[in-house]
Amino acid sequence: MKNFNQDLAICANKIELALEKALKFESLNEPFEAPQKLINAMRYGSLDGGKRLRPFLTQKTAEIFDIDPNKSIGAGLAVEMVHCYSLIHDDLPAMDDDDLRRGKPSLHKAFDEATAILAGDNLLNLAFETLANWEGYSPLMRNRLIVELAKGAGSGGMIGGQIFDLEGENKTLNQDEISTISAMKTGALIVASIRMGAVIGGADKDELLTLSNYGKLAGQAFQLADDILDETATKEQMGKATGKDKEKGKSTLISLIGLKEAQNQLEKIVQQAIISLEDFDEKADGLRAVVKYFGERKN
Amino acid sequence: MKNFNQDLAICANKIELALEKALKFESLNEPFEAPQKLINAMRYGSLDGGKRLRPFLTQKTAEIFDIDPNKSIGAGLAVEMVHCYSLIHDDLPAMDDDDLRRGKPSLHKAFDEATAILAGDNLLNLAFETLANWEGYSPLMRNRLIVELAKGAGSGGMIGGQIFDLEGENKTLNQDEISTISAMKTGALIVASIRMGAVIGGADKDELLTLSNYGKLAGQAFQLADDILDETATKEQMGKATGKDKEKGKSTLISLIGLKEAQNQLEKIVQQAIISLEDFDEKADGLRAVVKYFGERKN
Repeated sequence: MKNFNQDLAICANKIELALEKALKFESLNEPFEAPQKLINAMRYGSLDGGKRLRPFLTQKTAEIFDIDPNKSIGAGLAVEMVHCYSLIHDDLPAMDDDDLRRGKPSLHKAFDEATAILAGDNLLNLAFETLANWEGYSPLMRNRLIVELAKGAGSGGMIGGQIFDLEGENKTLNQDEISTISAMKTGALIVASIRMGAVIGGADKDELLTLSNYGKLAGQAFQLADDILDETATKEQMGKATGKDKEKGKSTLISLIGLKEAQNQLEKIVQQAIISLEDFDEKADGLRAVVKYFGERKN
Repeated sequence: MKNFNQDLAICANKIELALEKALKFESLNEPFEAPQKLINAMRYGSLDGGKRLRPFLTQKTAEIFDIDPNKSIGAGLAVEMVHCYSLIHDDLPAMDDDDLRRGKPSLHKAFDEATAILAGDNLLNLAFETLANWEGYSPLMRNRLIVELAKGAGSGGMIGGQIFDLEGENKTLNQDEISTISAMKTGALIVASIRMGAVIGGADKDELLTLSNYGKLAGQAFQLADDILDETATKEQMGKATGKDKEKGKSTLISLIGLKEAQNQLEKIVQQAIISLEDFDEKADGLRAVVKYFGERKN
């Protein structure tokens, strides 16, 4: 497990450096000089925080196909920008109304609502610009990566999931409905991160299918662990408000099946995810370690 | 002028049909089925409204290079999605707080704020997905179009301009500052529309420069006409609130130089824009007609 944490930290560091470079004032001044306030807000909302799990998934997937970790940076950078934009917009008063994120005031608290909306917009915009410009990928690969990212982020993925999630407040949802919402809201971008790694690796159709299936299970494990932590961890451990779902009268899996059964299910899903990769033999040990980590995470 | 209006209407109709097709429920259901509410909101915010001037600029620019109008639809569709997203987000209470758009309640009034934020996000997302998937363009061209669109929409363009515009409320700005804000907020996406047409047309470096210069002038003409109409037209003519800049204590060009001088400047800029295209001879008559139309528009 020590190697895993080091490996994750190395990837996070590379993404941090790539974000730092992408969000420098000078690199963004076309056609006009960008407002310093906007740059500051984008930096506040994306730098120095997060475990960069999605870029790590991209990297570990590409490694199955013997791709050098550095080749995954462009895709990882883009998916992380999309993830950060989604957190900024989700925290807005009109959405989940969260004042705390990664142990700091959320962006609209540290700046203002308008700046939070625009900084989020621009991180999404920049994610696609980054991919379309990334010299390490062929023109065709850039297009395929953009499509994967947009699908994961879009109406049938993350954005659609957020709409369903907001609609579900103060409604009683069954287990299927709850699962679909989290598969969209959280799972789809995790699946996209993995599929982007598969695209970089030149995966064939069957391999892409196997990896998407792993991604769905990994997304479920991630979300279940999140639900369990929302119930059991403190605000300090999580760096954001906990127990909010209950407070808002949101149906959660825990409220339906209980903590004990959720923990059982989490264990089962992690095992399923590990087994789902058997065709890749030891090449997929990296991805197996990620989902194991999802099952055991404490924050 | 009759032919011009017909030509504009034909283009608008094609973009309407392309938007209609892109925003069908069925075409958006990957990886999960999209929420009907989100689709409805995206349709509300983009269909059945607008003159589709940006796609028309893309088309007219590509026509200089003898490109069939139909080849410009993909780029026009994407730039119009970005334009519609920007109107939705600009109208939000935290931004310009406008209740009326194109003669109808703005999106957050017809739906709710969260849906407006998410529908806007997804139109931006879909714009890039559309370009990355557009079969009529080579992979390389798709990337170049995405970069042009993202630059126009980004921190050094539209989004950056909106930040400066909000910062400028209740501040006294000089003419240069006002010009820079509108060149970013409005001009940059107009320039991008034109540059996208130039990319489709295979323009060389000099041609691209000439067309960008025309685009800047066209953007200035468009914004000046808008400022003049904000002063002189009624809410009914414009389909949105007028006189709002004054109400908000915003510095406008009119407040600095007066209506008469603004009209003089508008005429001059239109002439400059027309002359700037002389290297293209009569091939650029389409673009000349557009900027003339900008100078004469009544809504």
